[in-house]
Amino acid sequence: MKQPLSRDSIVTEALRQLTSSGIAGMSLRKVAAALETGPATLYAYVEGLSELHALILDRALAKVTVRPTANTSWRDRLQRLLRSYARVLTASPGLAQLALGTIAVGPNALRITEALMALLEEGGVDPATGAWAVDLLMLYVTAIVAERGGGVDPAAPKGFVARAVDAVSERDYPHVHAAREQLLSGTGEERFAWALQVILEGILRRPRSSAVEPAATTKSRPRKRSAHAR
Amino acid sequence: MKQPLSRDSIVTEALRQLTSSGIAGMSLRKVAAALETGPATLYAYVEGLSELHALILDRALAKVTVRPTANTSWRDRLQRLLRSYARVLTASPGLAQLALGTIAVGPNALRITEALMALLEEGGVDPATGAWAVDLLMLYVTAIVAERGGGVDPAAPKGFVARAVDAVSERDYPHVHAAREQLLSGTGEERFAWALQVILEGILRRPRSSAVEPAATTKSRPRKRSAHAR
Repeated sequence: MKQPLSRDSIVTEALRQLTSSGIAGMSLRKVAAALETGPATLYAYVEGLSELHALILDRALAKVTVRPTANTSWRDRLQRLLRSYARVLTASPGLAQLALGTIAVGPNALRITEALMALLEEGGVDPATGAWAVDLLMLYVTAIVAERGGGVDPAAPKGFVARAVDAVSERDYPHVHAAREQLLSGTGEERFAWALQVILEGILRRPRSSAVEPAATTKSRPRKRSAHAR
Repeated sequence: MKQPLSRDSIVTEALRQLTSSGIAGMSLRKVAAALETGPATLYAYVEGLSELHALILDRALAKVTVRPTANTSWRDRLQRLLRSYARVLTASPGLAQLALGTIAVGPNALRITEALMALLEEGGVDPATGAWAVDLLMLYVTAIVAERGGGVDPAAPKGFVARAVDAVSERDYPHVHAAREQLLSGTGEERFAWALQVILEGILRRPRSSAVEPAATTKSRPRKRSAHAR
């Protein structure tokens, strides 16, 4: 007896729906219909929509390149990896939005996390900090792609945003007025590159063990918060 | 002749729909119907759905407190402002998702930007860097609220994420395996507080004028990129 239904066939169909119709165009009901079964049957294979999302996202992440050019600095390789992740999210409508509400689970998410943690370690980041740093870096990249998907471009010339900023009152908003050109400056790519540098620099300067001190890092202190981690 | 239709009445109705039904429950068509007119009529008041989103978001941001406690450090006041913003987004379903695809335009967005830029200036951040820093900080907070709205909690005990991380192969993913407790550690609040510290630290260490140098800051260099800003 043939068994066409499997986690694999469910995820393949769900990703197909997401890619062609966006996040609103995919549901357990529609996946079941396409596979000629009832939604209840799917629950034998996936815990529910959340797990299905996690599996779809992981499948989509197969296209992320985790080992780009060798012989470059760890910073450069880390940025390339994150750019590859951004490109994969950008390529499929709905994927960034899905990623924002989903923790990917599967071999590709593991491969990406492993590579990012290895690169951060190479940069001198301890594992406790690296674990949270991966989360922050991925969230930033996901958010910027989701934002662009929403059509946001602060520098769009002469849209209503630019008009509002240009017309701002110097008396009421002196800092905004003084920086009105800066607020609209830069391409998305320039802002992305700068923001990644900012976050990385902060990660290097703010190991979790130093979280309570406002000033310098104190790497030698015992990392209390990691001790009672789950 | 009475004129019930205005930008104000349109925004009030649209925000009511967003708050009660989320982002999918609000549209120009539904707003027009509620105000007993046709969608085409609304275009005399707003440029389209993008501008309507910008106006709704600004209206919702009226509840953000920009001047919290005095007599605390600029860092503390900046964090309080961002937390107030996070609370406002969290309170209304759909608002974070809307904010992710929208640049707010209006007095409240200006008030928040003005306050953030003043606080960053107090911390020694130059206006060119401050302008992009406001964007990065707001994006991070928006993303974290949108992510939570999606029900994401990496530390949710014994969900499928925790099970997958717990079961990870030491041979295939040594860094993930070594940090598997850290990957699931911390409350949302702890991760939020750490991430804000990381981003702020990075902003202080990475003024835009130094963007090309990998190492130290060079504040005295002319800021070329700001010169040709739009």
